[in-house]
Amino acid sequence: MNSSSASGKVWSPVVTPFHEDLSPDLRRYIEHCQWLVDNDVGLAVFGTNSEANSLSVSHKQQLLDGLVEAGIPGNRLMPGTGSCAIEDAVTLSRHALEAGCHGVLMLPPFYYKNVPDEGLYRYFAEVVERVGDAALKIYLYHIPPVAQVPISLGLIERLRKAYPETFVGIKDSSGDWDNTRTMIQQFAGDGFQVYAGNERFLLQTMREGGAGCISATANVNGRAIVALARQWQQSDADQAQLALNATREVFEGFPMIPALKSAIADFRDSDDWCRVRPPLVALDAAQRRQLATVLDEHGFSM
Amino acid sequence: MNSSSASGKVWSPVVTPFHEDLSPDLRRYIEHCQWLVDNDVGLAVFGTNSEANSLSVSHKQQLLDGLVEAGIPGNRLMPGTGSCAIEDAVTLSRHALEAGCHGVLMLPPFYYKNVPDEGLYRYFAEVVERVGDAALKIYLYHIPPVAQVPISLGLIERLRKAYPETFVGIKDSSGDWDNTRTMIQQFAGDGFQVYAGNERFLLQTMREGGAGCISATANVNGRAIVALARQWQQSDADQAQLALNATREVFEGFPMIPALKSAIADFRDSDDWCRVRPPLVALDAAQRRQLATVLDEHGFSM
Repeated sequence: MNSSSASGKVWSPVVTPFHEDLSPDLRRYIEHCQWLVDNDVGLAVFGTNSEANSLSVSHKQQLLDGLVEAGIPGNRLMPGTGSCAIEDAVTLSRHALEAGCHGVLMLPPFYYKNVPDEGLYRYFAEVVERVGDAALKIYLYHIPPVAQVPISLGLIERLRKAYPETFVGIKDSSGDWDNTRTMIQQFAGDGFQVYAGNERFLLQTMREGGAGCISATANVNGRAIVALARQWQQSDADQAQLALNATREVFEGFPMIPALKSAIADFRDSDDWCRVRPPLVALDAAQRRQLATVLDEHGFSM
Repeated sequence: MNSSSASGKVWSPVVTPFHEDLSPDLRRYIEHCQWLVDNDVGLAVFGTNSEANSLSVSHKQQLLDGLVEAGIPGNRLMPGTGSCAIEDAVTLSRHALEAGCHGVLMLPPFYYKNVPDEGLYRYFAEVVERVGDAALKIYLYHIPPVAQVPISLGLIERLRKAYPETFVGIKDSSGDWDNTRTMIQQFAGDGFQVYAGNERFLLQTMREGGAGCISATANVNGRAIVALARQWQQSDADQAQLALNATREVFEGFPMIPALKSAIADFRDSDDWCRVRPPLVALDAAQRRQLATVLDEHGFSM
């Protein structure tokens, strides 16, 4: 896999458009991904906001192939490959390697709760051993509010020690800045890339020595987020951070994934973009209007 | 699918033995399943205790095919088919239908948390419509401590109303007797089969008008559980329930799945049975000895 590019500070867990039969809409997907890349946003496809766990393994393989065939460069791709079953994680990680991806973003297995770190260590180690390719670069995905299975500091330490060239970073979606800061202080010194799970912590992350952010709202507000990631050392950085927060707050007032899709539907003038897979539910017409109105009041544009 | 047999009161989420490479060990699996059936325990294969979500779809298909080829009757099989991705649930449910299974036990999609009932309804409806076979019989699987996504009374009511011939029962693994009782009182009158998620509530469930229990410990203590399910109207039923509780309590003193496997390993004189898939971890030697000693003190035998 390719080494981190200079522009790899901001990634988006890319939302997935669907046809009426709920199959992924590759044409719209490529269009959105291309737009993100044009805005210097990396593609963390198959994340939580991608409804990736609502997709079959073969769906994900087809989508990744479609992006590569459309000319999206591998170094802009960081697909999510973590799965409850080791075989699925291995299949998807190998596929990502073959596609020349920058790295993979891996959830822990998330069905069983309160599992010991030893079991999680064995899971990740088993995936690494089965993939059996030194080019594999894994970014861990810590998102306890959703997965309900945390990735502890002790687990990171152990994986780093056993596979220092493989476990190269983490996305911290704990929503807890103290945790992100501790991860940076403890592991960033020797090159471990700590990404904040949303742009609220972008400036703090950059100042502390972290790598950037991987954020849902980069699907719609990527340009502004990238601007701060580039110019975080400038005097107006705090101001820029406040502006990012204000936009994010609007989206957080709604179910996040349906809200992102609604904004993209307006931008693309295509209601088809609103579709989500069950168990999620799209915004209703009133919610859509309300979101559009508030975004308008904020002077937001994609 | 076949109608409920008179002996369908006790089911076991069958634990899955693994080879050293973590692939399922079909020979040991068939042997254990045959023993359960001989003890009149139904096979709720691919449940939580089966480590089913740690297996790929194709693993589950191979195991089910293996059981059918070994002569296990379809009416003793209730495979778990719920998955985060609709396609996987449909694939597995169709496969169960083709194998002539009694029914399927379906988890809700369990990655996203705090999803609306509307979204869960659409998920289950979508599976039913895609399978498109009136023979499909679905038992819902309510296990909030693990899935973290509950199946509410309102959701059951709605699914029953839309598909009364399809949603025929539920396994309540909430561990909350009040909830099980309410489900029985609200839905059992018109034939909905409410199973307690463990045998602690078996006697109460039978007295209230429920169907029986689907319990982890039926993997090892099935004979005694079945005996109570048959003789619950006899005068010594309360005594029998207390004895079941005492055995269960021993297993609950350890991580359940590794403990069940350890007991089976002792019964079969085969340490191979102890293997679990990550993120679970097998009991260590000291734990194994401790479990065996306590079971021995209780006069337990498989």
